[in-house]
Amino acid sequence: MKTVAKLTLDDARIMMAAAEKKALAIGVDMDIAIVDDGGNLLMFQRMDGARITSIHIAIDKAFTAAAARKSTRAYGETSGPGQPTFGLNVSHQGRFMIVAGGLPVFVNGDIVAGIGCSSGSPDQDEDVAQAGIEALEAAIA
Amino acid sequence: MKTVAKLTLDDARIMMAAAEKKALAIGVDMDIAIVDDGGNLLMFQRMDGARITSIHIAIDKAFTAAAARKSTRAYGETSGPGQPTFGLNVSHQGRFMIVAGGLPVFVNGDIVAGIGCSSGSPDQDEDVAQAGIEALEAAIA
Amino acid sequence: MKTVAKLTLDDARIMMAAAEKKALAIGVDMDIAIVDDGGNLLMFQRMDGARITSIHIAIDKAFTAAAARKSTRAYGETSGPGQPTFGLNVSHQGRFMIVAGGLPVFVNGDIVAGIGCSSGSPDQDEDVAQAGIEALEAAIA
Amino acid sequence: MKTVAKLTLDDARIMMAAAEKKALAIGVDMDIAIVDDGGNLLMFQRMDGARITSIHIAIDKAFTAAAARKSTRAYGETSGPGQPTFGLNVSHQGRFMIVAGGLPVFVNGDIVAGIGCSSGSPDQDEDVAQAGIEALEAAIA
Repeated sequence: MKTVAKLTLDDARIMMAAAEKKALAIGVDMDIAIVDDGGNLLMFQRMDGARITSIHIAIDKAFTAAAARKSTRAYGETSGPGQPTFGLNVSHQGRFMIVAGGLPVFVNGDIVAGIGCSSGSPDQDEDVAQAGIEALEAAIA
Repeated sequence: MKTVAKLTLDDARIMMAAAEKKALAIGVDMDIAIVDDGGNLLMFQRMDGARITSIHIAIDKAFTAAAARKSTRAYGETSGPGQPTFGLNVSHQGRFMIVAGGLPVFVNGDIVAGIGCSSGSPDQDEDVAQAGIEALEAAIA
Repeated sequence: MKTVAKLTLDDARIMMAAAEKKALAIGVDMDIAIVDDGGNLLMFQRMDGARITSIHIAIDKAFTAAAARKSTRAYGETSGPGQPTFGLNVSHQGRFMIVAGGLPVFVNGDIVAGIGCSSGSPDQDEDVAQAGIEALEAAIA
Repeated sequence: MKTVAKLTLDDARIMMAAAEKKALAIGVDMDIAIVDDGGNLLMFQRMDGARITSIHIAIDKAFTAAAARKSTRAYGETSGPGQPTFGLNVSHQGRFMIVAGGLPVFVNGDIVAGIGCSSGSPDQDEDVAQAGIEALEAAIA
């Protein structure tokens, strides 16, 4: 057996509040999802103007980032035709996201969560996700 | 054209807080999901001791209640062998929930949301969902 | 953040070896699956005479037991027509198993894994799963 | 009727041990899956640091390689836009893998298994799969 850190709902609330604040600041209502280290959903919010199609995209970005321990942007950069992970995005019945906006969350080098955002541009989505991570890091510092 | 009332994220927050408070009061950590009138997810929270299998069960109870405009308990009562809705629960790739704990939310007779809870007994799940609805009704009274 | 115990592959090997030994002892080749606390597959073996249909049944029994923190037998006992969890088995696209043979694995009260077996009678499947758990308990005692 | 060689669980163990040893040697924890000639799972192991998303990717690489009797790399090389197998990877609900790391296993010209690895670079994944095949060939030589 080994011992690992596990995200609580209170931790997720801190991340969610900061991500929502960032989304408001840039003026883009978003779907925001936070999953645990196993890729299972912990918390989700759809802001009033966020897309319905982005519900699952946000959840799946969070899933991919946590379960693969890598940003969804990183997969997008190696998944073009002829590149090493071309075609990977259809795995998991299409849940494997390669569009930016999903980030893994590490604490002391261990994966503890994933956060995924959707409704803006991929860059905006990632910025909002990053705001969530920074709030968690500040809270546990 | 017609005019309809639409649940906001702030409305969902009121429901979620009351449902969470009720779950804490009865001592059962739950997965709690709120969907809009289209059955699409608005807000979700998994309390620390809630079941992972209950993530989708809660979301699907909320979906079923809102999209069918009927409690999931009501479907369970008519879905036994030889009864009118027998077998309905396998529809929507198994998302059609017939276990108690999913309630439709009406405002002035119009459907505005569904709330679904899971991790306790079906009766407990429904009590927690009901607490969410009562908080919304109090808030908009 | 909270701290939890996490099963390693070496822990899973101990469980698998004991379960396989038990299956050989009762003369029933089985599919045996072990998942982590998040319901994600850690280790799987299909013995030479085990059923192909039992691959997913074993994996899904382990998933259900870990993710719901309850034996699949317990769900079977409350899922008959007119009972509280009737119809639950179609959730998760049918992955929610209510046939005996899936057991949750707890260490110090925390869920750490699930083990699921299939190919024998449900009672035999559960006996083999139980042998896996007992070996883990002996190993970490 | 014809007579075919069939992989046993003991054969799979030989392949798995060698693949795991290779993964340790190159310092990349991996998900490793072995399927039979029918593409059905025989044995699976997730090393402690391996990705959760790679569970299904490894299994699906093994499935594709055995069931198509071709390496997943070979499909990747012909699946770019305008190429003959473009789009094939979405078949089988996305299980058809075109990323390197899945190899078919032949004995005397007959397909007997597939082995799929994931968590490293595609090249690393394929190297680990190849180590499994070489161990089997040595064992039956």
